[in-house]
Amino acid sequence: MSGLVATPLTAAAFAPYGDVLEAGGEVFREINQGRCRRYHDLATLDFDDGRAGVSLFHAELRAMPCELELMERHPQGSQCFVPMGGSEYLVAVAPDDGGKPGPVTAFRARGDQAVNYRRGTWHAVLTPLAGPGLFAVIDRIGEGANLEEHWFDVPVLVVG
Amino acid sequence: MSGLVATPLTAAAFAPYGDVLEAGGEVFREINQGRCRRYHDLATLDFDDGRAGVSLFHAELRAMPCELELMERHPQGSQCFVPMGGSEYLVAVAPDDGGKPGPVTAFRARGDQAVNYRRGTWHAVLTPLAGPGLFAVIDRIGEGANLEEHWFDVPVLVVG
Repeated sequence: MSGLVATPLTAAAFAPYGDVLEAGGEVFREINQGRCRRYHDLATLDFDDGRAGVSLFHAELRAMPCELELMERHPQGSQCFVPMGGSEYLVAVAPDDGGKPGPVTAFRARGDQAVNYRRGTWHAVLTPLAGPGLFAVIDRIGEGANLEEHWFDVPVLVVG
Repeated sequence: MSGLVATPLTAAAFAPYGDVLEAGGEVFREINQGRCRRYHDLATLDFDDGRAGVSLFHAELRAMPCELELMERHPQGSQCFVPMGGSEYLVAVAPDDGGKPGPVTAFRARGDQAVNYRRGTWHAVLTPLAGPGLFAVIDRIGEGANLEEHWFDVPVLVVG
């Protein structure tokens, strides 16, 4: 089956679109008498006149290969997704191309990775591939629509 | 073995100390063409001159029964813990009693529950009981110590 191949999510590959939050590496603070490592302030939260809030999203599982029918973006704020079940999910993003998504890139995110979409970044809707489909979301709470959608004429098939 | 019995975490029982974030119930917004439920803005984030940030905490597992040697509080901001492994953790809190913790209450939190400690609430350090010990933490990023600790003369034994 031909289609867009989802590759493992890395901070470097995702950098044009936002932050990957993950533990590991040598940069942390030891807290609680050495019993806990704090990986500090990993997401660039960026809101306009709104404020940060924490919501829970409970989404239907999807299976691979997966058809993306639309992408969306939030012009008024960044949006951070934290998986709560330790399970894999699909992340698809695109640069803006004159008000619609340009070429799509797809990643498989591990269950110990959170992602923070930069304000205004085109991304697929929440697409858990396993587990409970439960995520904590840190995004903008405020007035205004803060949502643009783009429906593809032909769905984008993601494989891999 | 005698000791303080940890009971299942509920929003009602935790209300004096902060918020329990959990899905379920009838109050949600359907998004993504009905494929996702948004349980909206569940945590009272409360910071002074700082700002909200997202960090990851990776903590050692503990076993029950569990001895609490200390509690801590953050006078400059609320602190929200989101479990990333879907696994149970211990939550212990206390009212303030003249600058130190009063009587301790202990809860067993499910892996699909997040908690948000109200600013200044005495609480035990992060105590995962199973799973990877990985949590996302939404708390205050800013200057200042923002930490008070109280060490118990005799550790508090939590059972149950």
